[in-house]
Amino acid sequence: MPGESLKIKSAADELKSKCADTIKKLKINAEPILVGSVAKGTYLKKPDIDIFIMFPKDTKRDVLEKYGLKIGETVLNGERKYAEHPYTTGVYKGYEVDIVPCYKITDTKEKMSAVDRTPFHTKYIIENLEGKQKNDVRLLKQFMKGVGVYGAEARIQGFSGYLSELLILKYRNFNSLIKEACNWKRRTMIGENAERFDEPMVFVDPVDENRNVASALSNEKVSLFIHACMEYIKNPGIEFFFPKKPKPLSKKQILKMMNERETGFTALIFDKPGIIDDNLYPQLRKCEKSVRALCTENDFRVIDSGFYVNNEIFMIFELDSLKLPNMKKHYGPMIFLSDAKNFREKWKKNVFTKPYIEKNRWVVNIKRKYPDVKNLLNEKITGLSTGRDVLKSVRKKFKIVEGK
Amino acid sequence: MPGESLKIKSAADELKSKCADTIKKLKINAEPILVGSVAKGTYLKKPDIDIFIMFPKDTKRDVLEKYGLKIGETVLNGERKYAEHPYTTGVYKGYEVDIVPCYKITDTKEKMSAVDRTPFHTKYIIENLEGKQKNDVRLLKQFMKGVGVYGAEARIQGFSGYLSELLILKYRNFNSLIKEACNWKRRTMIGENAERFDEPMVFVDPVDENRNVASALSNEKVSLFIHACMEYIKNPGIEFFFPKKPKPLSKKQILKMMNERETGFTALIFDKPGIIDDNLYPQLRKCEKSVRALCTENDFRVIDSGFYVNNEIFMIFELDSLKLPNMKKHYGPMIFLSDAKNFREKWKKNVFTKPYIEKNRWVVNIKRKYPDVKNLLNEKITGLSTGRDVLKSVRKKFKIVEGK
Repeated sequence: MPGESLKIKSAADELKSKCADTIKKLKINAEPILVGSVAKGTYLKKPDIDIFIMFPKDTKRDVLEKYGLKIGETVLNGERKYAEHPYTTGVYKGYEVDIVPCYKITDTKEKMSAVDRTPFHTKYIIENLEGKQKNDVRLLKQFMKGVGVYGAEARIQGFSGYLSELLILKYRNFNSLIKEACNWKRRTMIGENAERFDEPMVFVDPVDENRNVASALSNEKVSLFIHACMEYIKNPGIEFFFPKKPKPLSKKQILKMMNERETGFTALIFDKPGIIDDNLYPQLRKCEKSVRALCTENDFRVIDSGFYVNNEIFMIFELDSLKLPNMKKHYGPMIFLSDAKNFREKWKKNVFTKPYIEKNRWVVNIKRKYPDVKNLLNEKITGLSTGRDVLKSVRKKFKIVEGK
Repeated sequence: MPGESLKIKSAADELKSKCADTIKKLKINAEPILVGSVAKGTYLKKPDIDIFIMFPKDTKRDVLEKYGLKIGETVLNGERKYAEHPYTTGVYKGYEVDIVPCYKITDTKEKMSAVDRTPFHTKYIIENLEGKQKNDVRLLKQFMKGVGVYGAEARIQGFSGYLSELLILKYRNFNSLIKEACNWKRRTMIGENAERFDEPMVFVDPVDENRNVASALSNEKVSLFIHACMEYIKNPGIEFFFPKKPKPLSKKQILKMMNERETGFTALIFDKPGIIDDNLYPQLRKCEKSVRALCTENDFRVIDSGFYVNNEIFMIFELDSLKLPNMKKHYGPMIFLSDAKNFREKWKKNVFTKPYIEKNRWVVNIKRKYPDVKNLLNEKITGLSTGRDVLKSVRKKFKIVEGK
């Protein structure tokens, strides 16, 4: 490791000075700084190197973007990417590198874009994290990776690197954090007035009181982390950090499992939209939720659902049954309401029985519009609220595949 | 009608004087009175004749019962029956006759048994109902019969004769009652502080403020009456009073209907308990309700249910499906609760998947205990709360028959 760590450090330093040289040549006012886990010394192996180019606050946005990309291009010969900010990404001496322009602010209240806060995070950790605590952060990150809760990106909805550092600062070391996390309850809230935020876990950012560092975390991932801590306390072991990969089920095993359950499976398949994961995953979750709601509204009972991302999106739903009876009971108005007549007129046809009275309502046994979930999805899927890009892809082409 | 009415009157008078003779012979202190629709002149054709034998308030209960039955036996040579009170029922000159002992009270507050109030009802109606209103009562009773809401017995849960008389008194005549009933709302409440009672319709008894004359009425029957009034106003006709009997469906038609619905039918069949209808029907309704609840608790969706009474009870349930998938989702405790371990231990076997986390709960996909409604009923039916006599009959012998 020490050899590796020196190699990283020198690569980062070289990049920083290359940036400084370019700034000089371009005759602009800007300053490169190293941020992120390499700057903080809390990285696991093969980290990304993050260089930020800080521009004065009065720099015009288009100027910042133009020169920010110019510097990245010159130093890295890399690829342009666009998040809230445009930036450059590339490879240097085997390391993934991001070169990101930002504003040099003196207080996070002045922040003009999300990245402007990053140098404050780096500074805060460098100033507060003791040398041996760096190893605790590394241990924690590897533990989180092992149990599957590491990464704040939309695909994972887990713990960010900065959050893991703050947790070590708060609980001093890895072991006491694990111990304390066993006692976390319904909602874990750390920091002053944390209850202002409504996410499943709150850690108020020490450099910006208006931000919840844990905002990306899903309920599942917090719960999974707490559970892992409980298990680790009882029986610590290396497999928490480096779990064995589960063997994928064979097609035969999957078919056998589906048969035993006697449930119904239906899958929605469409092309993957060409957008970054952080935009794609929230849209896919929205799509999944909308389809579930559609099924439920139409009396299908959803047991479970999920999706796999490849060139195609494969979104699967497990239902009690893919088929409902042809007849359904339809409740109408109270008998003493004036529109009772309309109800009875409306349902004169397309019914199994004449309208009848139950307690004090009109009821009629009607023909179910969608007795098959496949027809329901085929007809309604392109009208669902699923996010712009997923909707576009689904509208272009989709298929529904059923299994039983 | 006048000839018939004279015949009834003379039969009733004869019975009354035969009772008086018997009382004299027995040398007891009692007084026969004619009550009910014959006394009030509000009967339809072939009414029951009701003679009450009033005993002084200080008569011991067993003495009242003994002599009450003795008089009935002597006059009618009839059959003993037991409601709250024992009484005699028989036939005289072609009329059904009840001879019922009761206490002669001066205020309904003193009432010792439900029948003690009846003479007050008779007296109240005779004193208040005008001659021509008697015809309105008859019209109303026939209307109620025609639309299927007449009769306060447990089998029907409709309007009693006394209630129909009170309604004519309140609304003056048949036509204005029908008109007013079209405007009855959610709960119809008539009388002072009627909201003390919680039945679907309330008519505070003018001779006993602690009684709701409409207490036997079901929500369905009130609604059906209101609906019939609305229809009658729009388009009055003889068929409201004398409807055509619907043709019963043929077996072929029933099978065709069942097939088209694609629902599942299951029937519980057991011997009819040897009890009077007023005790039987509430128990059957309780049984029906318990079975529905049992199905629902076990995830079966009940569309409708009903029962037919013959030598056997035939209780039928229509479900979305007679079969559920083998697998069901089972929710466990929150992950941070201490018994989470027990949950995971408990469900180590008999599961399709290992326990997993959803939001912050443990969940496990387990084997459903009753995927077939037939097995569910077979195993649980004798443990349901269904009323004493129905339970006894079911425990002796039952069968479950399925259709699809």
